[in-house]
Amino acid sequence: MDGKELKEITSRDIDFAQWYTDICKKAELIDYSSVKGCMIIRPYGYAIWENIQKELDKRFKETGHQNVYMPMFIPESLLQKEKDHVEGFAPEVAWVTHGGSEELSERLCVRPTSETLFCEHYANIVKSYRDLPKLYNQWCSVVRWEKTTRPFLRSREFLWQEGHTVHATSEEAKEETLKMLNIYADFCEEVLAIPVIKGEKTEKERFAGAEATYTIEALMYNGVALQSGTSHYFGDGFARAFNMKFMDRDNQEKYVYQTSWGVSTRIIGALIMTHSDDHGLVLPPNIAPTKVTIIPIGKNNTEVLDRSYDIAKILKLEGITCSIDDSEKSPGFRFAEAEMRGIPVRIEIGPRDLENNKCILVRRDTLEKLEVSLDNIVEEVIKLLLEIQNSMYLRAKIRRDDMTKSVLTLAEMKALSEKENGFIKAYWCGDRACEDQIKEETGITSRCIPFNGDNQDGKCLVCGKDAKHLVYWGKQY
Amino acid sequence: MDGKELKEITSRDIDFAQWYTDICKKAELIDYSSVKGCMIIRPYGYAIWENIQKELDKRFKETGHQNVYMPMFIPESLLQKEKDHVEGFAPEVAWVTHGGSEELSERLCVRPTSETLFCEHYANIVKSYRDLPKLYNQWCSVVRWEKTTRPFLRSREFLWQEGHTVHATSEEAKEETLKMLNIYADFCEEVLAIPVIKGEKTEKERFAGAEATYTIEALMYNGVALQSGTSHYFGDGFARAFNMKFMDRDNQEKYVYQTSWGVSTRIIGALIMTHSDDHGLVLPPNIAPTKVTIIPIGKNNTEVLDRSYDIAKILKLEGITCSIDDSEKSPGFRFAEAEMRGIPVRIEIGPRDLENNKCILVRRDTLEKLEVSLDNIVEEVIKLLLEIQNSMYLRAKIRRDDMTKSVLTLAEMKALSEKENGFIKAYWCGDRACEDQIKEETGITSRCIPFNGDNQDGKCLVCGKDAKHLVYWGKQY
Repeated sequence: MDGKELKEITSRDIDFAQWYTDICKKAELIDYSSVKGCMIIRPYGYAIWENIQKELDKRFKETGHQNVYMPMFIPESLLQKEKDHVEGFAPEVAWVTHGGSEELSERLCVRPTSETLFCEHYANIVKSYRDLPKLYNQWCSVVRWEKTTRPFLRSREFLWQEGHTVHATSEEAKEETLKMLNIYADFCEEVLAIPVIKGEKTEKERFAGAEATYTIEALMYNGVALQSGTSHYFGDGFARAFNMKFMDRDNQEKYVYQTSWGVSTRIIGALIMTHSDDHGLVLPPNIAPTKVTIIPIGKNNTEVLDRSYDIAKILKLEGITCSIDDSEKSPGFRFAEAEMRGIPVRIEIGPRDLENNKCILVRRDTLEKLEVSLDNIVEEVIKLLLEIQNSMYLRAKIRRDDMTKSVLTLAEMKALSEKENGFIKAYWCGDRACEDQIKEETGITSRCIPFNGDNQDGKCLVCGKDAKHLVYWGKQY
Repeated sequence: MDGKELKEITSRDIDFAQWYTDICKKAELIDYSSVKGCMIIRPYGYAIWENIQKELDKRFKETGHQNVYMPMFIPESLLQKEKDHVEGFAPEVAWVTHGGSEELSERLCVRPTSETLFCEHYANIVKSYRDLPKLYNQWCSVVRWEKTTRPFLRSREFLWQEGHTVHATSEEAKEETLKMLNIYADFCEEVLAIPVIKGEKTEKERFAGAEATYTIEALMYNGVALQSGTSHYFGDGFARAFNMKFMDRDNQEKYVYQTSWGVSTRIIGALIMTHSDDHGLVLPPNIAPTKVTIIPIGKNNTEVLDRSYDIAKILKLEGITCSIDDSEKSPGFRFAEAEMRGIPVRIEIGPRDLENNKCILVRRDTLEKLEVSLDNIVEEVIKLLLEIQNSMYLRAKIRRDDMTKSVLTLAEMKALSEKENGFIKAYWCGDRACEDQIKEETGITSRCIPFNGDNQDGKCLVCGKDAKHLVYWGKQY
């Protein structure tokens, strides 16, 4: 066994979709079951999700948010209280109709999202301005009955967090909406090494029931966009539908202003499709469940083994997660396994290395080898992990920027989109009709109106009228 | 406002059930919604659950377990694969029959427990002895369609962890079953300060499909028993039903041996009913989301406020979670709130205290007041938290032991159980008929056969034949 078998995954340049599925399976992130459209998240995939949870949860709590747990069921009548919301979700929910052998008097849907439950609860517990703001979040699974599914990207059940907050003023709610979007963006860039475009969705692409939807958009290796986190400002729309009122300082009864925001296991799909390669997963050190793996070479060499365990111990003391693969498999197979799992740094150490007081560090992102002295092993590993994290982000950003083009007309957009995928920047008048025409003629949708986009002298790429916005367009997952 | 209103909860000696519900509501652990039989776990309740999760998860990982996530749905045909199991659970599951507007070709139940899914997965991924053991756990919510529900104790949806492991030998699986029971018992006693009896369930009380069920049994303040965690040994029963085979070292194909074990949000019910009192919740320091609260007295006294924040800062540096309640409510109201929430230590500090370089510590468990010098505040708080943790456990254990009586005959058991609740120790021949008769005549069920129980010279309390076991009996939640 030299790892060839393990490495037999489709090349990402030949069949990107198959390559993606191969990575999910061979890196043991997921498995299938007899539950159609749902996935099993295996230990390695779940360990990545646990790290994502830990990082985000820390940021939520630091900004004053509290976790709660709402029921997983929503009575049909409750779901129907907000018109736009029910229209958006009812077609794709799973319905519970029986409890044991009895038919229920009212159908319950398995939550596709929990706005309605939070609204009902807030209407119950918020009475006065003193009760505001309420900054709640929940970690849970949700269900949307998708027709076609793909691991992490689209499955009938997925894990996520959904934040739901209510505020005394619209200003405060808007500030919260953007604060959480920025937390998502920072998390993506600093931890996952995924560069994102922050912006607002067009009306057409808004969340069902929202007044404004903000998004972070990432570009995958194949040039397809992936919405990686969203934050919604609801105004007082739900508040009116659910009668969420409070007594303000001025003794006036007022409606609350509301937000919601979410990131799901979908982000693991983004992680895979941004960084990984034909050898398998590539994980940024800041999210990798295991940052370093040591592979001792030379059968039953106790000196090598002892030294490997010493190195592991000292790395762990520095807070660096570290595993040792001293299994009986050939070195080549163990190298290939470490590569498939995307462990950022691999340490190879054999009897000859020991004699020379050195070892080999292999960085997963570039597969470059580095010979280092055993005297400085900890410093070298720490330096290398930092270097990998930074260069993974930079590489992804340069690629994203390279794949971002500007066009002035619909014809140019069409020609470009037939040639290659990527972000397309183009001016837009703000009319739904033009947006619809773009989708019809190119299959491309608006990704977002970037926060820093100018619209000074632009003309709409479809109708030629004065532009309202610069927009990022693209194919999307 | 002096906190009287807040304190208006039913006395536990007058109406224990109402007292319990009052605590759940007034300490803001839960709320109700329009989803019948399900509860909302509010921030304070969820913070307790997060601490429980953190403590247990650490212990699981230290013993080599990995977390995974299985689908929340189970196809009807999969649930039916193991006969005893489906008989145990089918009557109380929720059925999904429609996805969007389409009727499903096969009904899916919302998982009441996930043995079947884990079995299917293990059958897929375990091929050789090299793949064993697999030590998986998942944190999730499960659904059982209960007729009558109570917060934490019995609700249609609840949160839990379910561990599922497979092993090459029955010895190893049995060892795992007991190892996890011991982890549960240690957690209950060391962290929750709840004394438990470890033992085995009788055949009648076994988990559906198990060869042996082990349990930890706690006794509530009112003398009713609460099963607080269970660990099941399945032998190869599920393995045969699901064809879970592996190639052993000796080149023989063999069935795996299996375990499962779980603790749920029910344990929060045990926590409440073991320690709390007529002033509200009482939390052991080792699980309390906030260990200390500081209540500055004297309006707008900056010196008192500054000193309070200094104390909070220094306690946090010592890793002691600490809040300050400097709201405009009266001191009495703030004291009552801190008591309702069961915060282990309250620090009262006013201008006169400052002058004398002292403050008052109030321990929540006994409501005793302690005057301490501000110079030793940290040492005194640390000492007091330890003292509270220990004495809460001891007090619960002494009460439990006081409420544990022995009887020799069914007549004695009947008389005793009509007089008071509690554990009843009695010898039993092992026959189901005698066990059934006890239930019929007294309403009492077997709680467990304790690990350290002798059965040397005993006679069955019903039939008078030689006893097989000493058994703990009792009324149960």
